[in-house]
Amino acid sequence: MSEQGPTVYAHEALPVYLDDAASGKPAPGGGSVSACVGALGAALTSMVCNLTIGKEQFATVETRMKEVLVASEAARARLQELLQEDTTAYSGVLVAYRLPKDTPEQKAARHKAVQDGLIIAADVPLEICRVALEACRLAKVAAELGNANAVTDAGIGALLGEAAAVGAALNVRINLGSVEDETYVREAAAELDEILAEAAALRAEVLAATLAKI
Amino acid sequence: MSEQGPTVYAHEALPVYLDDAASGKPAPGGGSVSACVGALGAALTSMVCNLTIGKEQFATVETRMKEVLVASEAARARLQELLQEDTTAYSGVLVAYRLPKDTPEQKAARHKAVQDGLIIAADVPLEICRVALEACRLAKVAAELGNANAVTDAGIGALLGEAAAVGAALNVRINLGSVEDETYVREAAAELDEILAEAAALRAEVLAATLAKI
Repeated sequence: MSEQGPTVYAHEALPVYLDDAASGKPAPGGGSVSACVGALGAALTSMVCNLTIGKEQFATVETRMKEVLVASEAARARLQELLQEDTTAYSGVLVAYRLPKDTPEQKAARHKAVQDGLIIAADVPLEICRVALEACRLAKVAAELGNANAVTDAGIGALLGEAAAVGAALNVRINLGSVEDETYVREAAAELDEILAEAAALRAEVLAATLAKI
Repeated sequence: MSEQGPTVYAHEALPVYLDDAASGKPAPGGGSVSACVGALGAALTSMVCNLTIGKEQFATVETRMKEVLVASEAARARLQELLQEDTTAYSGVLVAYRLPKDTPEQKAARHKAVQDGLIIAADVPLEICRVALEACRLAKVAAELGNANAVTDAGIGALLGEAAAVGAALNVRINLGSVEDETYVREAAAELDEILAEAAALRAEVLAATLAKI
């Protein structure tokens, strides 16, 4: 993050994103990188759709594959947004910690601002988990119905969706550890458990289907 | 790939790589994307090193973390090269298939060229698997010895290394299916099995260590 605000990675060369991730800069970190990996997975599912749609031998699945393509491109677009959003997701917490704490009122206001910031910092990677799971589901359809010449791309799409969900979940959990709203913590933890269980099952299923076709 | 040769992704904006992966173009496909994911994982391990080195409380691990940083940056540089190399790894096969096959001599030459091309097409993702495994090993050291505030980044580093290895291995296997050199096939398959077993163990181990620290 420079004096002019955060780096907008959509305008930067691929190696700039990798260099910044490798540096000691606060962002991009594991949450943003997980979103990037999910976007790469969704892109591979889109590729399988694009190598299937319009080919006569896949006419019977044409409509379904067009729906999958729309959904995988939407998931990719959302993950590319989240890749950027995550780079500033923790900023609110850092700003809150710098608030004055000289009076009881100031202390209370600062405490509330930190808690609000932590929930935003957990919400962004939680959203990454949700969209990454959707990418896994779409990869499964692509592996089952898409052009078999590209089945490894669908398999890789599923495993990258799972990796993105597991990675972002670590960042949700680290923030949940400091959130005091017990209802939020309980609900987010339960949702994470469901997402990760479904993503793990999809990874195993799609990889098995891929190996069976090659 | 344009008339002017393949797109050099080191010079392109991040979304161009993602857009091309999503398109019906022959490259980048799952092998290149796996290399990119491995590079992202290695970058996160470098980040953990950079957030550890030079801090007084980590003085006892300073030398080791500097070694890990050199190794993770080398792995990242190699994976960024492989991300590009994989986009043309299959070109030799496509060129060979277009060779003339009118005489027995031409048929024999074409057959040999296809087989040579297939081995190159398998060698590139096999190399991605090897370097991705190295990224997993380095993430483990970063998770154990690095700044605990960044432990989730080390955990994500390990899981992306594993995903890169599993993804690239699918592309090795699909090419091995057409290679006739039985010794090459046997040795590559055995190496893959070893790489994937170690990567899976490292993923599980580093994720458990990460969860224990957050």
